[in-house]
Formats: sequence, structure tokens, C-alpha cells
Amino acid sequence: MERRKFLKSASIGTAAAAATTLAAPAVAQTQPKVSWRLTSSFPKSLDTIYGAAEVLAKAVSEATDGNFQIQVFAAGELVPGLQAADAVTAGTVEMCHTAPYYYVGKDPTFAFGTAVPFGLNARQLNAWFYHGGGMDLLNEFYGRYQIHGLPGGNTGTQMGGWFRKEIKTVADMSGLKMRIGGLAGRVITKLGAVPQQIAGGDIYPSLEKGTIDAAEWVGPYDDEKLGFYKVAPHYYYPGWWEGGASLQFFINKAKWAELPKNYQAIVTSAAAMANVDMQAKYDARNPAALKRLAQSGAQLHPFPNDVMEASLKASQELYAEISKENEAFRKMHDAVMAFRNDEYLWWQIAEFGYDAFMIRSRRS
Amino acid sequence: MERRKFLKSASIGTAAAAATTLAAPAVAQTQPKVSWRLTSSFPKSLDTIYGAAEVLAKAVSEATDGNFQIQVFAAGELVPGLQAADAVTAGTVEMCHTAPYYYVGKDPTFAFGTAVPFGLNARQLNAWFYHGGGMDLLNEFYGRYQIHGLPGGNTGTQMGGWFRKEIKTVADMSGLKMRIGGLAGRVITKLGAVPQQIAGGDIYPSLEKGTIDAAEWVGPYDDEKLGFYKVAPHYYYPGWWEGGASLQFFINKAKWAELPKNYQAIVTSAAAMANVDMQAKYDARNPAALKRLAQSGAQLHPFPNDVMEASLKASQELYAEISKENEAFRKMHDAVMAFRNDEYLWWQIAEFGYDAFMIRSRRS
Repeated sequence: MERRKFLKSASIGTAAAAATTLAAPAVAQTQPKVSWRLTSSFPKSLDTIYGAAEVLAKAVSEATDGNFQIQVFAAGELVPGLQAADAVTAGTVEMCHTAPYYYVGKDPTFAFGTAVPFGLNARQLNAWFYHGGGMDLLNEFYGRYQIHGLPGGNTGTQMGGWFRKEIKTVADMSGLKMRIGGLAGRVITKLGAVPQQIAGGDIYPSLEKGTIDAAEWVGPYDDEKLGFYKVAPHYYYPGWWEGGASLQFFINKAKWAELPKNYQAIVTSAAAMANVDMQAKYDARNPAALKRLAQSGAQLHPFPNDVMEASLKASQELYAEISKENEAFRKMHDAVMAFRNDEYLWWQIAEFGYDAFMIRSRRS
Repeated sequence: MERRKFLKSASIGTAAAAATTLAAPAVAQTQPKVSWRLTSSFPKSLDTIYGAAEVLAKAVSEATDGNFQIQVFAAGELVPGLQAADAVTAGTVEMCHTAPYYYVGKDPTFAFGTAVPFGLNARQLNAWFYHGGGMDLLNEFYGRYQIHGLPGGNTGTQMGGWFRKEIKTVADMSGLKMRIGGLAGRVITKLGAVPQQIAGGDIYPSLEKGTIDAAEWVGPYDDEKLGFYKVAPHYYYPGWWEGGASLQFFINKAKWAELPKNYQAIVTSAAAMANVDMQAKYDARNPAALKRLAQSGAQLHPFPNDVMEASLKASQELYAEISKENEAFRKMHDAVMAFRNDEYLWWQIAEFGYDAFMIRSRRS
């Protein structure tokens, strides 16, 4: 109806002229001065991940003529990277950019905000978040921690990490000391491996000395910078614990509620832009890094099939164990796995069929 | 430096208090009343694609407290769907939502804004657009038509379409009348097939009567609605001419330049949100539609390998022919194909390795 009215009253060109018409001074509430602080869980050296918060902050500032400023702090500048969510819960910062699975120690349910072993790939995660009920489920859970979450980037499928020696069979996992965290660490424990918690900067010397036998990090672009290929040249794939690893923006719920509606809309759009932009940046940067790594002596290997199968089985056991004692986890797990099974039913047809041909024809 | 100053002067909690501080009345320019019209190339029945323009319009309105209104018109309401770009060039509407490859009749270079045969998949397209120089190259070209383009959605790899009879070898393509457009139509001509231009609503009766032998549309979610499975049950994949099909927002350059900077930022974020949201919507909806189609009697087939190989060869011939006479096309083609080759070098490792395992384990 409005449309018909509009068509009647507006000759072509009227709308164009309107673009330069200045309105009466805007109501002050629409553009209040707001200053927020965002603590990132990441150092600036992980520039692609860290950069997603800067993309959001810049977009919000530009959309508000500088009236809404979000100042981004690297991990450790205000609070340690792994305490970013706590700072949001406490309201000491308004928001953070983090990987929800860092908080599996509080509750393993957080893992579904990033990635779980043998879960969704990056596009499937977005489908679940935005149109599969995923963010609703996650925000219901995050609410316990006074957090409102928004998807804020993805790395794509990560690599399986760097190994000092080749892994030829699942038996080679036994006793292996590997730098790996969260649920994946609990899974490889079931294969006899020993997960290690080591900060990013300490991985290289640990691999060099042989204090650990293997370490996972992200993918070619980030891994290259840390130089692991020099001390642990066997580079395995895929990272079955992170088929797609989502970063999220966590916002204190009370601060979120205080924001004018237009600012909420601006943050939501800016987060979506950061989400698609970060994945695009990794996808654009990883190929060249992979080439350089291969030239530097990195040896690419797929995980042996029995390692993959045993890891899948161990993951399912772990999910069953946690589900027994954690209702939120069970609910989220069941939703994600049902969604995943349907996604791959479709994925195997057009997407996978196309990629398979493109990869075959590239090789020949 | 600013950060240090901020840390010194701001005790924890100050920033939070600022969230409710009202500024002096905002300068009027920051929120002028603007009314734009957006003509979509799509009917409302293609609700996922059409909906991307509504997602953008809603986000822009919310971000500006309703001061910047973008009214969305379906194909045909203002101008026919395939003339959306012309209306933007002429300035009769400020913007449109369209598939750039609809304009290959003007210049085949437009195809790179959507998809070309054996080109990039959806994520790779975003990588090229946002971080591979793609949108810069495209906007340099679109500038000839007074257009500023922004990525605005993707369907993912499309299906290869519906065939009345099985295609067992490339020889079966000879004489085949297929509803397919653009560069793909020119490619299949080289295989002896006869491309047909038929509007969406006329495809079903044409297939039913046998006026045509095959027709491509989009993918399970959209195809199901048109009921093709009843009259052409052989459903082929992948749509090698649309490994990822991008929709774009086209904005008249003069109107874009007239927008205040904050409104430009708001439109850019909203377009990025529409971009990721539309892909997520398709990814969430296609699996269930595929299941229903299979239950209704659709028979899924991969294209025979010799059809794929012959189509690749014919595409390369076509690219060489057009490149000889069209410098903009040549430049874009060479950029895309170099980017694609690097992308698949990486894609075959972690992404494809992960998907391959997930698909195998789902089947068993």
C-alpha cells in the first residue's frame, strides 16, 4: 500500500533529489557519544583474527560519524586473552572478540560457539548460526554469563598441526605429547596421546627441544610466522577438531540493552561484515603461505584414515559422556549434529562435486 | 598514544557510563532524510535471493532510525528484472540487486561479477572480491556504466538442472535444447547443444511439452517450487557454470557520491550482512528441499566425466576467443583464473580433506 502511494506521489528523480535534502536536526538520541572498550583474546601478530575486531570498530565509527567509538585492545593490554569473556560478564569491558571454546573449562557447551570435533564447516556454521537456530540457542546459553553473542569471523578448516615425526597409524598417537586444547585434547587422550597447554610464543622452543612432539595452531598463514616447519616439518590435515572455527563478539547484556536501537543495528551489521571479511582474508592469504611453506620444506600429509576414524569414535564417546551430565551441552550437541548430517547430505552433491572436479582438473 | 591517554584517564566503568550520555544535538547532516528505490532483478517467489535486498533495506533503516529508507521493488514493478542495471546507470533508481552476468550481452566482462564456468566457489569469490582485488577490478569496469558495486549474496554451487532423459556421454548433449543463459549457453553450443532463453514461469510447460529437453534454475530450494521433477526427473550436478553465483548491489555512482560518508558506511556494512546472510539461508534451506525432491522421484546424477571435461575445454576456448577482442574481459579472466588456481591448491588440503571425510563417514 505504501508502495502504491509512493509510486503515485513520486515522479522519477524525486527520490534522487531527496538524497541531498537535509532533515530537521536529528533527535539527539540517534547519535549519542558512546565509548566502548573491546578486549581481544588475540595478539596483534594474529593479524587476520585480531583484525576482525578492528573491522567492526572502524565500521561502527564510520556509520556514526565517530560518535560511537569502540577501542580495541590486544590480549593482555587490559586482561589476559583467555579471560576476555569474564571481563564482559563482569562488565569491566563492554565487549570482547574471542573464541568461545576457550571457555570449555567453565562449561563445555561454549565449544559450540567455535567448533567441535567433526562438527560443521565454516559455511555450515553460518547457516546454523543465522538460519538454523544456532545463535538463538547459543545466546540462551550465553545469557547465563550476561553475554550477547554475534558471529565474528571464521578461519575455515584448520590444519592438523606440526609433528616432529610422521604418524603412520593410530598407534603412533600413543604417548604423543601434543599442544592442543579444549575438547580436542580430551579426544586425543582417548587415543593415548597427552594434550599440552602451551601459550603461542612457547610452542616453537618446546617443539625444538622435544618437550612436545606436535602442536596445532591455525593454518598456513598464521603457522608460517611461527616457523614450526623448521623443527617439526610434518604438516598434517585436516584439523578434524575445527572443520570451521568461528570467532564471536561477546557483548555485556546490560550494556547491549542500554544501546539505542540504531546502534544495536549498526553493531549487528558491522559484526556480520567482520564475519564474512575475516574468512575472506584467510581464504585470500592461505594459498601463498602454503606455497612458501612447501618450498621451505614443510611436508604435507593427510592424517591416516585409522587416526581419523578413531578420533571420530573417541569424539562420539566424549559427547555421550558430557551429554549425560550436562543438559545444555546435550541440547546443543543434538541440534548441531542433526543439522550437520543434513548439511552433508546436500554438501556432497553440488559443492563437493564441483570442488572435486576443480581439484582433479587442476592437478592434471 | 590515544590508547595510553585513555587508559590513564578512564577508570573501569567510565566507558560504560558514557553509553547513556547524550551528546549535544547531532549535526543535521549525520542523519538526513533519504529515500532510495531499489529494483530487484528477482521476483518475490525467489524469496532467498529477493530477500537479500530486504535484509539490506531493513538494516539501513534500523541503523538510521528510519531516516534512510530504501524501498525494494520486485522485478517488473518498476522495470523488468533484466533491465535493473540500466535503470541504475540512467539514475531512474538509485540502486538495484541483480546478477551481473545478466548483462553479458552488453559486455561479457559482467560475468565475473556473478560466476563464470569453472570459476571460483562461493567462499573463494568472497576472498577475491574483498581481499584479492576483485571488487576493485569490477568497480573499475562497472564505472563505465556509472555503477558502484557491492557483493550482495551467493547461492553456493548451483545444480546442473533438470533433464527429461539421462545424459550418459557427451554425445547426448548434441542437439539438446536446454534452458540456460549467458556464457554457459555459449559453452554448450560448442558441445552441439542449443541454449534457450526462457523466463522462469515458462520453463515447466516447455519441459512438459518437450519444447525443451532440459533446464537449469538454481538449486533444490528454488527448483522444488517450480515442480520440474514431475516432467524432467533427472537432476544433474554440479552446475559447472556457477561454482558460486554472486548477486550484487549496483548503486548509481553519482547517487553514491551524494550520500554522507556515514550512510555509505552503513550501506557497505548492510550489504556485507546481506551477502553472508543469503548464503547462510540457502545453506540452511537446501538440505530439506533436496530430501523432499528425492522422495518425490527426482533422480540425482553427477554429470558424466566426459561432459565435464568437454565443457571445461569448451569454456577455455570461449575465454580465449573473447579475450582476443575484449581487453577488460582478458584482464579480469586472467586475474580470476590465477586466483582460482591458487585457491584450489589450498582448498584441496584442509577444506576438501575435511569435507571428504565427513561425507564418507556420514555414508557409512
